[in-house]
Amino acid sequence: MKRRELLRGAGVAAVATGLAACGAKPPGEAGAASTEKFVWKMVTSWPTNFPGLGTGAARLAEMITAASGGRLTVKVYGAGELVPAFEVFDAVSRGTAEMGHSASYYWKGKAAAAPFFCAVPFGLNAQEMNGWLYEGGGLELWRELYAPFGLVPFPAGNTGVQMAGWFRKPIASLADLQGLKMRIPGLGGEVMARAGATPVNLPGAEIFSSLQSGAIDAAEWVGPYNDLAFGLHRAAKYCYYPGWQEPGPTLECMVNQAAYDTLPADLKEIVALCCRAVNDAMLAEYTARNQQALDVLVREHGVELRQLPDDVLLALRRTSDKVLEEAAAADPMARRALDSMQAFRAQAKAWHAVSEEAYFATRG
Amino acid sequence: MKRRELLRGAGVAAVATGLAACGAKPPGEAGAASTEKFVWKMVTSWPTNFPGLGTGAARLAEMITAASGGRLTVKVYGAGELVPAFEVFDAVSRGTAEMGHSASYYWKGKAAAAPFFCAVPFGLNAQEMNGWLYEGGGLELWRELYAPFGLVPFPAGNTGVQMAGWFRKPIASLADLQGLKMRIPGLGGEVMARAGATPVNLPGAEIFSSLQSGAIDAAEWVGPYNDLAFGLHRAAKYCYYPGWQEPGPTLECMVNQAAYDTLPADLKEIVALCCRAVNDAMLAEYTARNQQALDVLVREHGVELRQLPDDVLLALRRTSDKVLEEAAAADPMARRALDSMQAFRAQAKAWHAVSEEAYFATRG
Repeated sequence: MKRRELLRGAGVAAVATGLAACGAKPPGEAGAASTEKFVWKMVTSWPTNFPGLGTGAARLAEMITAASGGRLTVKVYGAGELVPAFEVFDAVSRGTAEMGHSASYYWKGKAAAAPFFCAVPFGLNAQEMNGWLYEGGGLELWRELYAPFGLVPFPAGNTGVQMAGWFRKPIASLADLQGLKMRIPGLGGEVMARAGATPVNLPGAEIFSSLQSGAIDAAEWVGPYNDLAFGLHRAAKYCYYPGWQEPGPTLECMVNQAAYDTLPADLKEIVALCCRAVNDAMLAEYTARNQQALDVLVREHGVELRQLPDDVLLALRRTSDKVLEEAAAADPMARRALDSMQAFRAQAKAWHAVSEEAYFATRG
Repeated sequence: MKRRELLRGAGVAAVATGLAACGAKPPGEAGAASTEKFVWKMVTSWPTNFPGLGTGAARLAEMITAASGGRLTVKVYGAGELVPAFEVFDAVSRGTAEMGHSASYYWKGKAAAAPFFCAVPFGLNAQEMNGWLYEGGGLELWRELYAPFGLVPFPAGNTGVQMAGWFRKPIASLADLQGLKMRIPGLGGEVMARAGATPVNLPGAEIFSSLQSGAIDAAEWVGPYNDLAFGLHRAAKYCYYPGWQEPGPTLECMVNQAAYDTLPADLKEIVALCCRAVNDAMLAEYTARNQQALDVLVREHGVELRQLPDDVLLALRRTSDKVLEEAAAADPMARRALDSMQAFRAQAKAWHAVSEEAYFATRG
């Protein structure tokens, strides 16, 4: 009744728009009330405010809260605060939290195709991942993959090319990978297993102690910005590049479908836009901070920065092709994801050969 | 009065939040009314819905309209519809339109430092531009530069590395640049002038006819996606790479400061978010479409894709260093922009040598 008075008082057209803007019910129309307030939980796989990843999740929550004028308030929980790092997928799927910020390659045990939407060995760099996901059919496949779990995925950040990892002993040849116990998740881990290493997966927060104690011989985490924050240079002497296993990992924001469906149209748009904005923001942050951290690691800490030998990289690439092909042969969605990604990568290689790569070469 | 009734009726806390979300005045608090509706004009330097640039501007307008639930509706005008392509800056500065979508290097006649926030020869690629603008102090300098004109700039798109351009005759050496009349804007044009060419600037829509008629001998526009749309391959036979003059041009959304100040906080946030989202979206679109268009140009149209000779690129780079240094010596803001950009570029080169560049090499 009082809303009707307001409508009469101020002129239907303008106010109806105002109410629609607020997701309110103009008389006789469905929608959320203008005064409806949503308070969501976002669980993450990162330590609270961990540089880049945790701060990216926090930034996403702040953006949504600010752009919605507080109509959708998001509270962020670090790994272990509400659920452990690797239970984010299940927690959002069952509705324990409405949102999660993580990396899809942690879920290959639940869906074999999941890693394709984060990073696969020798796959796409950040710019190419965005091209494939948004304009090459990748995101549609990802949504199809997560739908049965009641999850809506959004790209929500990228670290750019990572590093190959930290090693306690130098890697001069393939032989040096034999028996190497290394923290490396996703399909990269499977490739290392075929190469003779023993891959393990550990939440980021456990890497330093495991590497320092010798429980593991090597570990890849992210890159200079994040590795410096964990002090990995104090646990292993050799830092190898490039990150063949994660050339442009896309971070994910997953939203519980039922919770998403309760949002009015403008808040749905705001969630999608904020994910897109943080996708842009996180890569910018990594680009700026990685180069500063690399400088600190090399100049102040004397870290030995080494490139993996060509024959090791070539062997890893050949093994990666086999691992990806076998994953595709064993799972229909993985097949579609691999075929779609490879078709995009073939064209991206041709284009970047005359653009990004050719340009880098001119800077001397 | 009626708002007060509504407040009494529904409980102050919830409704106050709802109204705040709508930028409304809770009793005794300043702010726009929840029903306040804004209708803005966005003038652009692109043909209406021109692929990538025009569609990016249209996407930005749609994002803002949808995320605001229609409280801020933006109508887009193509080049010449409301003002000519190169009068966007003045039109938004004087308030003829509240927003504009263009490229800052078109305004070097108004502010010598303007090109640094779009593209300078042998400068930053797209990923590096975002890192510098958002995390390296670039955007703060840009806002300082535009403030006296009553404009608030936002990065709002990037094409990625462009092409060196289309030439009616092959470029085998520096001698072939002598007397060449070429459409090339910004500082790249000044570099070409020092190299003996005659640079001209033309709106995109006039390039094809000028090149086909022989009024100009060469033209750089953007890259395969956009050049194919204009049919430049039908006006010149040789397509050269890489785009030394525009390695990662940032497109701009400029907002009239006075108009921006009238927006409630949530709409200000939505404008900023949508610019950031389209900054992400446009590069993804170019990455996907450029590679497809390159394939069409080479396979279907038999375009001769050639790399500029090393000695030509080296000479252009040396001349570019001089041009940038002279621009900085002549203008305090250009000095600060160049110093800030160069400091960032030096670190970016070191980081991308072990990340992006080293990774591209592993894909064979």
